[in-house]
Amino acid sequence: MEHIRTPKVENVRLIDRVTPRKSAPGTLYLSSTHSIFVENTEARKETWVFHSLVNSIERPPTNPSGSPLIIRCKNFQAYHLLIPQEKDCLDVQASLTRLSRPERYTELSCFSYHPNVNKDDREEAWSFIDLRAEYGRMGIPSNLWYHTPANSEYRVCDTYPSDLYVPKSATPPMIVGSAKFRSRRRFPVLSYYHRDNSASICRSSQPLSGFSARSTEDEQMIQAIMKSNPVSELMYVVDTRPKLNAMANRAAGKGYENEDHYTNLKLQFIGIENIHVMRNSQQRIVDMGEIRSPSMGDFLWGLENSGWLKHIKAVLDAGVFIARAVAEEGISVLVHCSDGWDRTAQACSVASVLLDPYYRTLKGFMVLIEKDWVSFGHKFSHRYAHLEGDPKEVSPVIDQFLECVWQLMEQFPCAFEFNERFLLQLHMHVHSCQYGNFLGNCQKERRDLRLRERTHSVWPVLWEQQAEFFNPLYRDDPSQTQGVLRPVTTPHCFKFWKSMYNRAEKPSAVAARQSASECLSAVREETQQLEEELTTHQERIAMLTGKKVEAVVKRMSRASDGTPRRAPPASDRGEEGVAESPQDYFPCWDSAPERECKAPPFSLPLASALDVGEPDDLSACSDLESGVADLSSRSSSSGNDKDPDLYEAAYATA
Amino acid sequence: MEHIRTPKVENVRLIDRVTPRKSAPGTLYLSSTHSIFVENTEARKETWVFHSLVNSIERPPTNPSGSPLIIRCKNFQAYHLLIPQEKDCLDVQASLTRLSRPERYTELSCFSYHPNVNKDDREEAWSFIDLRAEYGRMGIPSNLWYHTPANSEYRVCDTYPSDLYVPKSATPPMIVGSAKFRSRRRFPVLSYYHRDNSASICRSSQPLSGFSARSTEDEQMIQAIMKSNPVSELMYVVDTRPKLNAMANRAAGKGYENEDHYTNLKLQFIGIENIHVMRNSQQRIVDMGEIRSPSMGDFLWGLENSGWLKHIKAVLDAGVFIARAVAEEGISVLVHCSDGWDRTAQACSVASVLLDPYYRTLKGFMVLIEKDWVSFGHKFSHRYAHLEGDPKEVSPVIDQFLECVWQLMEQFPCAFEFNERFLLQLHMHVHSCQYGNFLGNCQKERRDLRLRERTHSVWPVLWEQQAEFFNPLYRDDPSQTQGVLRPVTTPHCFKFWKSMYNRAEKPSAVAARQSASECLSAVREETQQLEEELTTHQERIAMLTGKKVEAVVKRMSRASDGTPRRAPPASDRGEEGVAESPQDYFPCWDSAPERECKAPPFSLPLASALDVGEPDDLSACSDLESGVADLSSRSSSSGNDKDPDLYEAAYATA
Repeated sequence: MEHIRTPKVENVRLIDRVTPRKSAPGTLYLSSTHSIFVENTEARKETWVFHSLVNSIERPPTNPSGSPLIIRCKNFQAYHLLIPQEKDCLDVQASLTRLSRPERYTELSCFSYHPNVNKDDREEAWSFIDLRAEYGRMGIPSNLWYHTPANSEYRVCDTYPSDLYVPKSATPPMIVGSAKFRSRRRFPVLSYYHRDNSASICRSSQPLSGFSARSTEDEQMIQAIMKSNPVSELMYVVDTRPKLNAMANRAAGKGYENEDHYTNLKLQFIGIENIHVMRNSQQRIVDMGEIRSPSMGDFLWGLENSGWLKHIKAVLDAGVFIARAVAEEGISVLVHCSDGWDRTAQACSVASVLLDPYYRTLKGFMVLIEKDWVSFGHKFSHRYAHLEGDPKEVSPVIDQFLECVWQLMEQFPCAFEFNERFLLQLHMHVHSCQYGNFLGNCQKERRDLRLRERTHSVWPVLWEQQAEFFNPLYRDDPSQTQGVLRPVTTPHCFKFWKSMYNRAEKPSAVAARQSASECLSAVREETQQLEEELTTHQERIAMLTGKKVEAVVKRMSRASDGTPRRAPPASDRGEEGVAESPQDYFPCWDSAPERECKAPPFSLPLASALDVGEPDDLSACSDLESGVADLSSRSSSSGNDKDPDLYEAAYATA
Repeated sequence: MEHIRTPKVENVRLIDRVTPRKSAPGTLYLSSTHSIFVENTEARKETWVFHSLVNSIERPPTNPSGSPLIIRCKNFQAYHLLIPQEKDCLDVQASLTRLSRPERYTELSCFSYHPNVNKDDREEAWSFIDLRAEYGRMGIPSNLWYHTPANSEYRVCDTYPSDLYVPKSATPPMIVGSAKFRSRRRFPVLSYYHRDNSASICRSSQPLSGFSARSTEDEQMIQAIMKSNPVSELMYVVDTRPKLNAMANRAAGKGYENEDHYTNLKLQFIGIENIHVMRNSQQRIVDMGEIRSPSMGDFLWGLENSGWLKHIKAVLDAGVFIARAVAEEGISVLVHCSDGWDRTAQACSVASVLLDPYYRTLKGFMVLIEKDWVSFGHKFSHRYAHLEGDPKEVSPVIDQFLECVWQLMEQFPCAFEFNERFLLQLHMHVHSCQYGNFLGNCQKERRDLRLRERTHSVWPVLWEQQAEFFNPLYRDDPSQTQGVLRPVTTPHCFKFWKSMYNRAEKPSAVAARQSASECLSAVREETQQLEEELTTHQERIAMLTGKKVEAVVKRMSRASDGTPRRAPPASDRGEEGVAESPQDYFPCWDSAPERECKAPPFSLPLASALDVGEPDDLSACSDLESGVADLSSRSSSSGNDKDPDLYEAAYATA
């Protein structure tokens, strides 16, 4: 609260970039978590901007009409304000600058966000995604893989999840030995099991091989992975880095697997650039969007010069290589980059989306994000600058994954249950920190922050909104789109993602797309209506003839899970991805009427920030280079089919 | 026939570009109109290539496996053949080179194409598109515009149609005077009337204004157009050329309207480049498609460097400017370029598509092509090189219009009744000359060639195939998509037209798009089925209760014209736009069984070329710079509400 110099400024104008004349005067309010602009019109239209979404605040020179302020958001939305007094403008800028760069997790909005949900429901919401159930769904056979308690208290690897699956023949010494031979102790573990042919995708970090170092345990570990695929005697290691980068790492005692030391191992470099290259590339794309009236040449040159689509193609190519190895060659793949939490997450999750139709459903996609990104220690807080920190840690890693999925949607319009809007919404939540899901950099950090008790989970909220995210073209029958997706990745198949990078100009495009979606939904709804009429008629006939009612065959108008599909509402929610109304901050749970949602005054977030306790803040120490976990701390291991004592001993002496 | 050196070559291979190993050996046959490759497999798969579609024949050096021959088509399809003997390859190349560059119209395939259709049906087919009915449909009020017989025998302008509409106050001397003051006597006439507000689009060629010349009659003519729009006292002249080009024309006694001489006239230059720039630009796009494995940089650089999308944007911008003037400002527009048959056709037809939902239906689009392109003297035979001639006359003018429509389809997926496949098919027919519609360079030439008696019309054939061209997203209710389309034309809204320019790599993309379309059609079909079931039930209830049958409300599953929509067949016709099977050359009329269609041997086209008489060939003299028609020849004028004698006299003395 002490950061807000001016909680309220009147006679502000929010300039409409497309039609500047349209902008109405209003009042700007600053809360601890949001800036809220309320129009002085009868409609009192409200525009809410999450401070955690704010990327930069620019103040062009004051002009006769006032002091302009440009707020640019991490989801590439921009707000142009005109403030009458320069002093107010300076105050707002200073306040926003501070508020948008919190120094502690507890300043983030999820800690002051208290929807009307009781404790039990909150906890249940956190169980909405169950990763153990997901490993069960994959159909992992217990004679090939097992759940290891090795990391149950994050003793082997502090950035890994506690639940890990390793090959049946992987012994505790192998696990510990392999972990010691890998950057940040991220040893090879199962990411995806392809039940069709027993091939699997494992993930890890780079080996500490340098120019000649080797580890028998690590070699045995790889051998164990190979053995857990009875079909193939070969295995791939996909190093997602450009080969030069991987070689450079050898000088620092890291690097890549020496094929001579590993049996039947084939090394494949993919060439995804590092986080710094990606950050700069995206910045160029964003800068391009800032040009007022770009010519076709400006646009195409800018697109080429940014290199962005080249990088998207590299990520997709990595996924395609892995998916092809697994599905077509039946060969297991170990994927790593340097630390195994950026490019590795991208490559594994793209491959999973290509391989398994489940990950193309709404629920399955949530599971995938939770598994390969959240649980495996993708550094959300660092990459998306949740807290004031090292700008070199920031990079659009998950943006690229979401864009790969979007590019796939464009190529396979019937293959995904969800639509682009879902991807944009997810992208917004990753940055906004309204929910606790994406806070912190690893599972251990989230546990220590007690996020499950202090914040809410976004997944059931998104699930409730599924009607808005439904792709009416989605076909869930087991046809071509249901199997493995085989995208074409020649350059002309990639498109510029307008809805992500050109937020200012989208009304018409969105309207058009919405109309397509509405048209489809109308047909589907009509089909449903007809089915219902048919039932009524059948009942009437049954009544008249005295025969039993025949069952009406449910057809395409039902979703795979049997719930009826609701047509997406003719959305008037304005721009996607940004809270423009209080509903976004106080979402409508179930069937609460809209009036009720609008009811809570925004003094709530203002006040509540002070109520929250401030536990040990972990943001500062979460990414030390020497991040080897303290393995001496003991705790009871659970749920294991091997001798727990043996394990205890093994990890304790590691 | 004398051009075919080798009518048949055995043991030829048609190389599959995507998977070269797949290519089966077969026999290559050369007819006067086609090359036909028949695989030596049980399926005896046939690939037919229209000679009129062939753009170039390239012969790379002979290699140990044989003599390669690359046939490139005007629809950007390419065929790679491997011929065992070099001599045969040379013969095939020489034959194809000659056959693909006929010197006389009668060598074109439409003259040897004789489907099993009787004389009456053939004539009726030519009446399928009725332009007089179209002007009626527009709702032209007789107190503002009238049908002038001025050009009934092409006496005023030999490249204009005989049926023309001019403002009520335009007198014969004005028409003749204005014609004399315009390039090739193409005076201002009505192209489109916007019944909502009486604004109109007229078209003409450039005035012969030079640096100071003026024509009272032309000025009166423009005044008459302005008066025929009671709502506005202003009028636009859209000169679609870059201003510099228009200025350069002044030195040749041509140029543009001097605003000082015309009352309330506003001149607007649009900047569409000339046919030579466009030809080169498209060639660059095509060359880019030839690169084997282009990098993202190659692709984007090539796209930018070609300038193609910049030109597409210019054409679309012209249409947007005109449509906005007409619909939003209620101001009439006169459109011209130099001769008024290329850029003018583009601009007028794009504007019409934006303004009038009718032109976004299958039938309406045919009408539009027939009106603004065929009847108004777009030089099809010169632009698409139907005959051996000046390569500088060739230019992808209609390609650009079709691409503008495609770009609009991408932006408004529910606005068009037809799909991309229809555009590609149309593009193919413009080049292939299987039907007589696009032969010649103007209506007079087509009349003199007696095309209606000697060839067939493509329109009813395409209409019969409508199920294949139907856009399942099309919404024909009077909502947002039904009114005026207001596209965004910022550069990022333009896409590379894969299906047109990347024919080699499309299987996956087409499959995906087809699956979307199939999914939609399935839902629609299901709705129809449900409706039918419902009817049955209602009848049963009626029977049981003794009440009258209630009418079942027909819903979205019916097309606007009341005919039931057929689902597009799971097409196995192979690549679009190229005759791959005899059906394409001997199309199935109505319900004739496929066997019957396949029956006519391809000796038919081979033989019939000789049967056709050879009337005066007009191709050579159709585009002389001094193309002023002989006005002294008289003929009876018809259908006119003014004194015909007065007219006769006026045009005779012109």
